[in-house]
Amino acid sequence: MKEKILEYLHQKHNYLSGEELSSHLGISRQGLWKHIQELKDLGYEIVAVPHLGYRLEALPDRLFAFEVTRGLKAKTMARKIYYFDYLVSTMDLAMQLGLKGAAHGTLILAESQTKGRGRLGRSWFSPKYKGIYLSLILRPQITPSNSPILTLLSAVSICEAIKETFGLEVQIKWPNDILAQNKKIAGILTEMNAEVDKVNFIVIGIGLNVNNDKKTLIAQATSLKEQLLKPVSRVLLLQAFLNKFEDNYSRWENKGSSWVIERWRSLNSSLGQRVKIYYQHKHLEGVAVDIDQDGGLLIRKDSGIMQKVTSGDVMYCRQP
Amino acid sequence: MKEKILEYLHQKHNYLSGEELSSHLGISRQGLWKHIQELKDLGYEIVAVPHLGYRLEALPDRLFAFEVTRGLKAKTMARKIYYFDYLVSTMDLAMQLGLKGAAHGTLILAESQTKGRGRLGRSWFSPKYKGIYLSLILRPQITPSNSPILTLLSAVSICEAIKETFGLEVQIKWPNDILAQNKKIAGILTEMNAEVDKVNFIVIGIGLNVNNDKKTLIAQATSLKEQLLKPVSRVLLLQAFLNKFEDNYSRWENKGSSWVIERWRSLNSSLGQRVKIYYQHKHLEGVAVDIDQDGGLLIRKDSGIMQKVTSGDVMYCRQP
Repeated sequence: MKEKILEYLHQKHNYLSGEELSSHLGISRQGLWKHIQELKDLGYEIVAVPHLGYRLEALPDRLFAFEVTRGLKAKTMARKIYYFDYLVSTMDLAMQLGLKGAAHGTLILAESQTKGRGRLGRSWFSPKYKGIYLSLILRPQITPSNSPILTLLSAVSICEAIKETFGLEVQIKWPNDILAQNKKIAGILTEMNAEVDKVNFIVIGIGLNVNNDKKTLIAQATSLKEQLLKPVSRVLLLQAFLNKFEDNYSRWENKGSSWVIERWRSLNSSLGQRVKIYYQHKHLEGVAVDIDQDGGLLIRKDSGIMQKVTSGDVMYCRQP
Repeated sequence: MKEKILEYLHQKHNYLSGEELSSHLGISRQGLWKHIQELKDLGYEIVAVPHLGYRLEALPDRLFAFEVTRGLKAKTMARKIYYFDYLVSTMDLAMQLGLKGAAHGTLILAESQTKGRGRLGRSWFSPKYKGIYLSLILRPQITPSNSPILTLLSAVSICEAIKETFGLEVQIKWPNDILAQNKKIAGILTEMNAEVDKVNFIVIGIGLNVNNDKKTLIAQATSLKEQLLKPVSRVLLLQAFLNKFEDNYSRWENKGSSWVIERWRSLNSSLGQRVKIYYQHKHLEGVAVDIDQDGGLLIRKDSGIMQKVTSGDVMYCRQP
């Protein structure tokens, strides 16, 4: 009912009489008043003027499911949304929901995470209402070794969404970071539940620094607010991401991986760089030459020998 | 307390006086009597003779955790056991427990499953008290593409355990079946939770037909009872499997995969056979020549071209 009320208030930019509204909705004036109070409690600024009615003045800065869904082009992604004020980790819940059969495209959103997870057991700082912390459940027909393509596809979609929404160019750092001016603005964590030769489901986890203040960020991190010098709408960015991701996902399903790799190449900041890669208690230095169809990074060592790396942490030895 | 009482009764093959027992355990005679009743309810045949005391005459045919643990050599595997009279599927519970951080070696046992799962979404018939239905949670330091080795290692351990306990030779059929006289006696399902380049945990699921009667088995299946012409102890077999598995697992950790492959080769019934393989809506015919280090099956087609298959169903075209 609250969603319907919001729908009406959104449509009409001027005052909407309580009488009209309650008759449209088939509820009493008192019932309407109660719902309006609840919306106000959620942070919606709704003014009530005698003889004129209600008017929606401002939206709260929240990723409520009905805010995300309103005007969303994507049909499969976020068809079902789980929204929480806080979670231990959206990944943990997503894996649980996946086991229980949650549908392809199910989205888990949290306004904050007490133990947001990053790759290889690291944490993701998830302060309340500042970032986008999401997990997206997917059910692709692939083998576990094909799964890195979905990390690449997610990275591409994030870059495109940021560019489209705010005009800001960001780059991908292999394997799963998004950088703005060489500082981390987003991270991607891809986890799966699989048989040895068949993925049951995959969860794409994304942490995106949106309205984080500079002083709360570590030196190697940044946020959209810091880059754009103003706070921005998390809802718009999330919608843009979901739309891009859905487009890219179906294009990948229909056309295969090559164009994803192609697009990734054009957005990455790793290729051509001299890098030091730490992996499995070893490290390796050389020039990052390319990625292959499996998403592995190809390194040309000083000896001239090429080596493929499928996991690890990349340090750029010189700035581009 | 019940476990302690059983311990004493097991040690002493003659009557054990109630007085001695209750003073050993520091409980009242009445308390002891109550525990004895509960053990009888569980199926333990305990006789009580005035002036002589209690004697354990027979054990129930159950995989109670304390029966599995008693005399078990394995220290890591089954260190923690979850036992159920029935479950929907031991795999489902194991995946849930894995997400919650269950330790390496955690064992889930069910006396029956209402929806026992096989590979590729198939079912495993799990009648009560007839088979061994287990899931074992492992936390190896491997990538998803290395995971098939644990299916091979499990298959080898099952064959060795059956041989050691009952003297029966069984064979492995690629990728995950155990055959006795060309009929399925056990199946293995390996599932994992992983990042793209790191396994978080793996669950080995095993369904083993032990005391199933011929009339309850489909034509392509058999049981140990049918092969040995008598019912056998599920506890002994399970213990043998856990011991073998633990030995093999630590050998694999220390020495790598080659000897697992070697051992698998000596126990398999697939290599050298003319096979038809159904995979991903395609099929392929040829001679199964070998498996590689990743557990993939190498097929020599009639054209002479070799092809590697990593998943699929194998049909033997001629009997060996």
